[in-house]
Amino acid sequence: MSPSSNPSPRRVAIVGATGAVGREMVSVLHRRAFPVGELGLFASERSAGRTMETPFGVKTLAAFDADVVKGYDIVLMAVSGDFAKEHAQTLASAGAVVIDNSSAFRYDPEIPLIVPEINAGALGTSRLIANPNCTTAILVLALGPLHQAFGLKRVIVSTYQATSGAGAEGMAELEEQTRNQLSGRPVTNSFFRHPIPFNVIPQIDAFQDNGYTKEEMKVTWESRKILGIPDLPASCTAVRIPTYRAHSESVTIETERPVTADAARAVLAEAPGVKLADDPANGVYPMPLTATGEFDVEVGRIRANPVFGENGLDFFLCGDQLLKGAALNAVQIAELTL
Amino acid sequence: MSPSSNPSPRRVAIVGATGAVGREMVSVLHRRAFPVGELGLFASERSAGRTMETPFGVKTLAAFDADVVKGYDIVLMAVSGDFAKEHAQTLASAGAVVIDNSSAFRYDPEIPLIVPEINAGALGTSRLIANPNCTTAILVLALGPLHQAFGLKRVIVSTYQATSGAGAEGMAELEEQTRNQLSGRPVTNSFFRHPIPFNVIPQIDAFQDNGYTKEEMKVTWESRKILGIPDLPASCTAVRIPTYRAHSESVTIETERPVTADAARAVLAEAPGVKLADDPANGVYPMPLTATGEFDVEVGRIRANPVFGENGLDFFLCGDQLLKGAALNAVQIAELTL
Repeated sequence: MSPSSNPSPRRVAIVGATGAVGREMVSVLHRRAFPVGELGLFASERSAGRTMETPFGVKTLAAFDADVVKGYDIVLMAVSGDFAKEHAQTLASAGAVVIDNSSAFRYDPEIPLIVPEINAGALGTSRLIANPNCTTAILVLALGPLHQAFGLKRVIVSTYQATSGAGAEGMAELEEQTRNQLSGRPVTNSFFRHPIPFNVIPQIDAFQDNGYTKEEMKVTWESRKILGIPDLPASCTAVRIPTYRAHSESVTIETERPVTADAARAVLAEAPGVKLADDPANGVYPMPLTATGEFDVEVGRIRANPVFGENGLDFFLCGDQLLKGAALNAVQIAELTL
Repeated sequence: MSPSSNPSPRRVAIVGATGAVGREMVSVLHRRAFPVGELGLFASERSAGRTMETPFGVKTLAAFDADVVKGYDIVLMAVSGDFAKEHAQTLASAGAVVIDNSSAFRYDPEIPLIVPEINAGALGTSRLIANPNCTTAILVLALGPLHQAFGLKRVIVSTYQATSGAGAEGMAELEEQTRNQLSGRPVTNSFFRHPIPFNVIPQIDAFQDNGYTKEEMKVTWESRKILGIPDLPASCTAVRIPTYRAHSESVTIETERPVTADAARAVLAEAPGVKLADDPANGVYPMPLTATGEFDVEVGRIRANPVFGENGLDFFLCGDQLLKGAALNAVQIAELTL
């Protein structure tokens, strides 16, 4: 998947390098042999001066300084939407290619929202590119090829989202509070709205007027933009569960043209970024246990859903949301610009 | 909910009294002040002679003996389908009211499959009555009233099922293996097909030829029978997650007549056995943390789903599957026979 030519090394900055996504960005640059000439790791004032072990050697973290960062060729931003709004366009105007992992620009019709396997052609000449929501990124890898083959008419998704989707603190709270519960100590919550050990929380992000959360609406809005189907009827129920890493999704689609499990399996077997994990008789299906740390998104449990006559399909997927759902996708976008 | 008259005490036998469901049956009989005249607890040869603390005092377990058990007025069976097939009809023929928690008789058109809030009228005069699958029992409490009000056209369910749905060993394996993982010891699995700590397993029960598991098809088959809609298009994706108790379900329905969130909420607020947990702004929605140990099934996250125009509705529910999904429903059926 690496570029086949030998592009000249790029100066790469990661802004938000100490977070769960930022750390993965460093790792993915190395795993994919991205031509990194210089690597700048930027974080908050608080972290500045600290060192961080990376596959590129021990690096010293610097406080974010727009005047410094704008000198890099490629800026990967793993920061809040507010921070991105404040700085991303300035950096891009100064000449850097800025790939922003926040939701700040995803719905701006002028800014491309890219999953390279699906809509690399939408990249255009913008120097600011939005990286999609994690749940959406792993979902469209399956939806895109199925749309090409059968036409999407309706999409209904329920998610099983890992605590790391909320950042490193989410994982830490799961581990610490699970230890507390198993030791009979009081279980509390400061990061999540409710205790997460051995629980299920059907809320991710804030509620909108229509009763859906922002996380749920992101799946609708972003899938439409990435797939290029502006009015696609799509809904999501987004649920936090006590896992560390890798989001799972239960997906039901209605297709425009008849679909069978075998036909869908054949399409998904060829889909880039997808690993078919669909041998249920032998216990092979998508799971966080097997999808964690992997670049490819596992898709399985593929079966015709008779609720939509001959046009219904169910499947289950699991993808490492810190990788394809964030860091990997950002690096893949950077590769497109080489 | 207890009977208002003062029925004469009944001799009650529980067959399979040491399992997760059997234990709950004892507890529920007491919590609901069922008129228990004599309580017989039956288990395997291996457990015979052991004592068990119950709200009715310390009881000695007896090995199952059909000749003894058939003398009871009411027999609650929490045993395997094979065991039920071998004995249930003999006991019922001898005069006992037999309420069987296995799937052995659920699809027999001659045997009533009862959720008292929904189809008590289907009880008839049969002395053998089937108790539904846990996932279905908690689901139909919401589907029934919604069908009365708006008409069900399609039902799509994704579940988040607790380890205790597989019995007491499921909970034990979750706890033990979670301890192992947090201590850095090897994590294994003997009860579940894959390690369950911090994982998601999209398989419950065996796979059928159509790609669905038996657990998933039970939701379709049993919902149709209980709701009295023999051809209802309904599908399910059943997923095991690392929780101890209480199953959650993400439900999307298409209705025959237009539905709004407010109208659905008004219907569910009046639904027997349902507790509305739908104040998302204040963090109130169904969760295992709040539904565990409760008789009522929590329903919330009620919102119009535009995927089906004006006829779509999403909701989330959580119910203690050992109670409404098993023991409570069985005792409620017994109450109907008083």
